[in-house]
Amino acid sequence: MKLYDGGRAPNPRRVRIFLAEKGIELPTIPVDMGMMEHRSEAVTRLNPLQRLPVLELDDGTILTESVAICRYFEELHPQPALFGTDALDRARVEMWQRRVEFELYLPVAAAFRHLHPAMREREVPQVPEWGEANKPRARAFLSFLNEELASRAFLTGDAFTIADITGLVSIQFMKPARIEMPEGLDHLHRWYDTVADRPSAAA
Amino acid sequence: MKLYDGGRAPNPRRVRIFLAEKGIELPTIPVDMGMMEHRSEAVTRLNPLQRLPVLELDDGTILTESVAICRYFEELHPQPALFGTDALDRARVEMWQRRVEFELYLPVAAAFRHLHPAMREREVPQVPEWGEANKPRARAFLSFLNEELASRAFLTGDAFTIADITGLVSIQFMKPARIEMPEGLDHLHRWYDTVADRPSAAA
Repeated sequence: MKLYDGGRAPNPRRVRIFLAEKGIELPTIPVDMGMMEHRSEAVTRLNPLQRLPVLELDDGTILTESVAICRYFEELHPQPALFGTDALDRARVEMWQRRVEFELYLPVAAAFRHLHPAMREREVPQVPEWGEANKPRARAFLSFLNEELASRAFLTGDAFTIADITGLVSIQFMKPARIEMPEGLDHLHRWYDTVADRPSAAA
Repeated sequence: MKLYDGGRAPNPRRVRIFLAEKGIELPTIPVDMGMMEHRSEAVTRLNPLQRLPVLELDDGTILTESVAICRYFEELHPQPALFGTDALDRARVEMWQRRVEFELYLPVAAAFRHLHPAMREREVPQVPEWGEANKPRARAFLSFLNEELASRAFLTGDAFTIADITGLVSIQFMKPARIEMPEGLDHLHRWYDTVADRPSAAA
């Protein structure tokens, strides 16, 4: 199989960090999203929705959506478990993954897409009012997360999971989205430093 | 355990349809979202994010996020499998679930929240330009889905899954969001009729 990768964008990074945590190496085909190669004919044939990354299996089967690709590798290589270990734990990982995606990742992405000058020709129409409306939402969720992290090491408990990966890339996405990290969220900062220091974060 | 339900809103419906497909009956506590009861002190204590539904286990553990609640019941009652049956199938269900959520459900929800007069005091700020921008996105995805459904019965293949539930509630959400179904999408209509006719759709 091979992975059509998308460089520094948050979703391709999620999958690379996940694979690094699993110790999985894959043949990778770089696609330059800065050069709009994800909208090329070649990528559109693989994924008509023109999103990256894309996993192509040896029989030609295509898997898209970062979390779907990660889940496939979780099934093939269950250890270390990054989607949870039993029924309740797997549900908690799903819950936190979704909370972080809907309350942090999407607001940060909206601020980036609707306010950043580089996105003017890609996000049509760019709606600056919508971008601005998302900044306080992202910050409010970070405060909520800070309180949650007072009582545990990682987002879902004692173990690192895919929800932590989504949290890490979302927070790092705040820089190009020009959202400042609120002051004084000590538990969040402690968690962030732990996660950002893992070797996988360089993937 | 007990389910704090949210009536006709799409996410509470997703969980009720899922439970109906599984044949699971649960004690249910109705919460009137029209009366803003999901922002009450009682619900906020269960879910600080003020979203429904919420599942409370017998030991007081709280699970939120519709898909996390569904996944928990999938683990407890694996048959009929609604999240897929093997590694690749589970990844495909995740892929289609996410495609429908991000490319259809979220655009329809944005049109509803940012354009409907009833949402004026709940979605602050309401950004009509953003609501309008989402309507063509939803319609474009329906055309894509129509082509996909030319070659199979359900979104992920021969079997009904949670992705079909998300598709059903998303399409029914188009009515309050005032998005018209495009003409001539015969495969999509055939799929929709099949799914909407299942007894679970009345849940």
